[in-house]
Amino acid sequence: MTTRIPFMSDNAAPVHPKVWEAMRAADETASPYDGDKLSQALDERFSELFGRDCAAVWVASGTAANCLALATLCQPHGGVICHREAHIEVDEGGAPGFFLHGAKLILADGAAAKLTPADIAAVADPIRNDVHQVQPHAISITQASEYGCTYSPAELAALGDYAQARGLGLHMDGARFANAVAGLDCAPRDAVGPCDTLSFGFIKNGGMGAEALVLFDPQQADLVKYRRKRAGHLQCKGRYLAAQILAMLDGDLWLENARAANTAAAEIAGACDGRLMYPVEANELFVRLSAADRDILRARGFDFYDWGGDAARFVTAWNTRADDAVALARAIAAL
Amino acid sequence: MTTRIPFMSDNAAPVHPKVWEAMRAADETASPYDGDKLSQALDERFSELFGRDCAAVWVASGTAANCLALATLCQPHGGVICHREAHIEVDEGGAPGFFLHGAKLILADGAAAKLTPADIAAVADPIRNDVHQVQPHAISITQASEYGCTYSPAELAALGDYAQARGLGLHMDGARFANAVAGLDCAPRDAVGPCDTLSFGFIKNGGMGAEALVLFDPQQADLVKYRRKRAGHLQCKGRYLAAQILAMLDGDLWLENARAANTAAAEIAGACDGRLMYPVEANELFVRLSAADRDILRARGFDFYDWGGDAARFVTAWNTRADDAVALARAIAAL
Amino acid sequence: MTTRIPFMSDNAAPVHPKVWEAMRAADETASPYDGDKLSQALDERFSELFGRDCAAVWVASGTAANCLALATLCQPHGGVICHREAHIEVDEGGAPGFFLHGAKLILADGAAAKLTPADIAAVADPIRNDVHQVQPHAISITQASEYGCTYSPAELAALGDYAQARGLGLHMDGARFANAVAGLDCAPRDAVGPCDTLSFGFIKNGGMGAEALVLFDPQQADLVKYRRKRAGHLQCKGRYLAAQILAMLDGDLWLENARAANTAAAEIAGACDGRLMYPVEANELFVRLSAADRDILRARGFDFYDWGGDAARFVTAWNTRADDAVALARAIAAL
Amino acid sequence: MTTRIPFMSDNAAPVHPKVWEAMRAADETASPYDGDKLSQALDERFSELFGRDCAAVWVASGTAANCLALATLCQPHGGVICHREAHIEVDEGGAPGFFLHGAKLILADGAAAKLTPADIAAVADPIRNDVHQVQPHAISITQASEYGCTYSPAELAALGDYAQARGLGLHMDGARFANAVAGLDCAPRDAVGPCDTLSFGFIKNGGMGAEALVLFDPQQADLVKYRRKRAGHLQCKGRYLAAQILAMLDGDLWLENARAANTAAAEIAGACDGRLMYPVEANELFVRLSAADRDILRARGFDFYDWGGDAARFVTAWNTRADDAVALARAIAAL
Repeated sequence: MTTRIPFMSDNAAPVHPKVWEAMRAADETASPYDGDKLSQALDERFSELFGRDCAAVWVASGTAANCLALATLCQPHGGVICHREAHIEVDEGGAPGFFLHGAKLILADGAAAKLTPADIAAVADPIRNDVHQVQPHAISITQASEYGCTYSPAELAALGDYAQARGLGLHMDGARFANAVAGLDCAPRDAVGPCDTLSFGFIKNGGMGAEALVLFDPQQADLVKYRRKRAGHLQCKGRYLAAQILAMLDGDLWLENARAANTAAAEIAGACDGRLMYPVEANELFVRLSAADRDILRARGFDFYDWGGDAARFVTAWNTRADDAVALARAIAAL
Repeated sequence: MTTRIPFMSDNAAPVHPKVWEAMRAADETASPYDGDKLSQALDERFSELFGRDCAAVWVASGTAANCLALATLCQPHGGVICHREAHIEVDEGGAPGFFLHGAKLILADGAAAKLTPADIAAVADPIRNDVHQVQPHAISITQASEYGCTYSPAELAALGDYAQARGLGLHMDGARFANAVAGLDCAPRDAVGPCDTLSFGFIKNGGMGAEALVLFDPQQADLVKYRRKRAGHLQCKGRYLAAQILAMLDGDLWLENARAANTAAAEIAGACDGRLMYPVEANELFVRLSAADRDILRARGFDFYDWGGDAARFVTAWNTRADDAVALARAIAAL
Repeated sequence: MTTRIPFMSDNAAPVHPKVWEAMRAADETASPYDGDKLSQALDERFSELFGRDCAAVWVASGTAANCLALATLCQPHGGVICHREAHIEVDEGGAPGFFLHGAKLILADGAAAKLTPADIAAVADPIRNDVHQVQPHAISITQASEYGCTYSPAELAALGDYAQARGLGLHMDGARFANAVAGLDCAPRDAVGPCDTLSFGFIKNGGMGAEALVLFDPQQADLVKYRRKRAGHLQCKGRYLAAQILAMLDGDLWLENARAANTAAAEIAGACDGRLMYPVEANELFVRLSAADRDILRARGFDFYDWGGDAARFVTAWNTRADDAVALARAIAAL
Repeated sequence: MTTRIPFMSDNAAPVHPKVWEAMRAADETASPYDGDKLSQALDERFSELFGRDCAAVWVASGTAANCLALATLCQPHGGVICHREAHIEVDEGGAPGFFLHGAKLILADGAAAKLTPADIAAVADPIRNDVHQVQPHAISITQASEYGCTYSPAELAALGDYAQARGLGLHMDGARFANAVAGLDCAPRDAVGPCDTLSFGFIKNGGMGAEALVLFDPQQADLVKYRRKRAGHLQCKGRYLAAQILAMLDGDLWLENARAANTAAAEIAGACDGRLMYPVEANELFVRLSAADRDILRARGFDFYDWGGDAARFVTAWNTRADDAVALARAIAAL
């Protein structure tokens, strides 16, 4: 079989045609950096989307978005509590240590890579309140989580209460925020809850190279803009990034794309009875499959990651063909 | 007059059609980050171009390229000698301090924002060789300089000799390297001379959001790649950046574009007799113009920057229309 | 009972009379910083002690010694593998993140706060060798460990082999190195084994404010000296620090003091049959004691730390009175 | 001549007997770090001295004091305006870059190494208020200045007004604050004026290894204490540092010592008619002396620094013998 059927990651997908269109439409001489009218429109556009005043800037990666966001919530001598398997801990090459000038990630455990107040308290409470130990300044959660599970509005409210009571900032890594909103079938506002900052991912969902960093305290925008420049992330022709984001928001393309991916994931999940390690609430599936079974699937053209032990990870994308999802579902069912 | 004629900066220019084409041609499911075949081709392509073994990676901005390059040459407790008006000192928001973990820029003076060994020695020699003073670890020069002047191969060789004798690394900020090569009319290899690292700019010259960081010691590639990821600059869909760079190199589009800009600049320079502050060796003109004269030019539709005192800066770009250059030349001549 | 009997920590002890004498003897006008003859004598004195060429500098704290040492072994984008309960992780206020510019501590588990190659491999092996994950650059161990246990020469050799095979640096936090050497009853050289760097503690053992950072690769001394100055740790009147260290080394006062502390600990350990959580190999005891038992001991004047659950920590010092050790032993035996 | 007469620097002087006494008096088992009663007394003692509420902590060097102070006033992406010859720029090994995480020193010129609002405005005003340029967050001045000159209360008030109008923090490097107060013959409060933070030097003035960092906004104490620990500057036996500072404050020993040094300087200044480069307002003299004259003085036993060109620097200390000052004065007069 020569053609491979991609379920490795949504980050391998191409760019949505409407995103291309918007980028081409921005192709003119214009004010550089973020002085163009598209970049300037982001604050208002996201304020509308979330129904509250916020500031938004583009950056080229989720790593940059996460770290610039955390820099508004955590001082260099502080710590950020996150899940042991959080992307910022496991897959960002130590970027938080760089952007936060040596601040510490304090690792918590929680089911499905999610955290509850109790999970957080389990690591926060033993920290002595003295200068010998790094004090937590913020919490970072991932929506949808690294295992494709979503935080409900009630779960977010509980985290917000905890964070407020402890004086901690609350950040949301939303690399797959669109898939989470689609999965929760709620308003964007309810999917972000009381978070102070949100890394709103577009790249995995049909964009090319633009994520939005959303600040629900717009007064932090100034800090973020200086830090973005300082990190080499203030791109010269920012209009092409802003265009991507605006195209995704127009007509709710972001939700349409996310729903397509989630639908494909649900199709496959239907065939994984008894094999699923976590509920499929977005566009990722973690499936128990023996090495032999994985060999069979790969021989049939399906590409996916091994995820340790008997686990395999399948990720659907905005452009996953319905036929491919059905074919994978059948192939798994037939094992 | 409603249509403005842009001479503010080449960073305001749109993207070259062939760059668009190459990006579209890369629009497929592919290995993420820099695992795609285009990103993987960069080392070889730049090795051909420079006629020597080198490594090359894409980044989204000249600031990131400069700072990642300098991180291979300067330790956190060291310093980088650069011109007082160097872009890294004046216009990068303190990024060197961030990427180099607090290393110091040691500011030298030199004609036309260029540095000679004597200029460098004037600041390096007084530094006591003890731990109380930050020792220089590297030199950074800009080709073409911030005043649009080029370093000749002989000048570069002299700097290389000096750097070697002092045990200093040598970096070239080549945001307008293409214009410098076009202006020098020499081989790319001769325009970079003995530099250890080069930020090779494409964005101002027709690209969208990709610069190349070229390492003439390929063994530094590993360090740069870890640092790039750590800075949030390892973009997810890197093929779209690599495609831009390869499109620029194909058929020497980079030189063609740079020559067009330089030709336009020369056209204008011809009308600036007695007004030029620096020789026009690339695509920037620094012109003495009274406030009244500047008003006249702006009233005629020309956009450009004031540059302090009686100075005005005009920058041509790959897409500057010949008619516009001629019109500006005439307008200046008529003052 | 008004007089308290201190077993909280050896860091509460006063300064040894011979240290005072040596400091007073240094009280003259002299070359500042480390230009004085005492500071200049350290390299040779430690080279003699360890029977191999090394460089040594004074610093004011174990935290500074550890972090400056690690900076010679780990780059900002790398990681240091240490025990989950290592002092650098738990009690240094995030100093490694500061001195190492955001490098990561990678936490391993091991019995008695010690690490074996297998313990280290358990966290190092799963790290993917790609830029998305922080790669280990070094290992840090503590001699004696945070639970008062020592690494034997054979254990150190095994760690050295592992480190070398993996290309990792090896650092020893020797806040209680003297107690470890006394406990192991071996040559200093054998108690440090193949480590690249050693924080050699004197403060807990009768000093006032001087630890030695020993570099078994003397070529790293230059780096450490620049970094020490840059961290504000190059004290103006360094002769008073060097004097402390030299006084401790003279006539093996450091060993005499450590033996006194260890003897007191052994005395107490003899009464703790069945209560000891770890073998007592230096000057710390971790003892299972109910809350009621701890109340009884405190009512009798003994001061010590609770250490979670039913654990109590007792630390003896160079000046622990034999009577006090006997009294504590009897009090525990009588519980 | 075998005995040298020291005018190199006050940092070469020995420790005052009363400081020794106080340190010895602190020699007992006590709470470690800054939990002892002496360290705990500092806030109140300095509040009394300055007649206003302040917090104070000990550190081991002026570099640490300056940098920890500046960290309360300047963010990593900001800048600190200081004199081109300020100690933090010239002689602290890049420590501000380290402690401030890459923040920039913005260099101003001013007579006698002092700064006026106009001097500061000359560098601050040209900074564009955009993210491409590092914005000033704070100002640092030195009292007495690097050329031994003092800021009058009126000069300080003017700087305070400027700083407030610009929203900048104001730090005072008081390595020789005692000599400044003695020279100004004013209340300590008036010699610090509206500064937010003060590095109050004791080491050069008879101490051993303790400077005080005074925070006139006591709410910053928490930040400083975490940062001090993180920098390895929270020494284990802090009582010996606190004891030094308290001994210096008791009975105004700090002023007595400073007056002695200033008196000796005045004695010498009286012989330097026409040779003085700056008014002698504290304990430093910068004297024009030919190379031949310097040779003569050195042949007569006087040690001092060359200071570039025809300049020589003489510094008196708390223990400078009156006879030595007179002898130097005569020797200079006789040239």
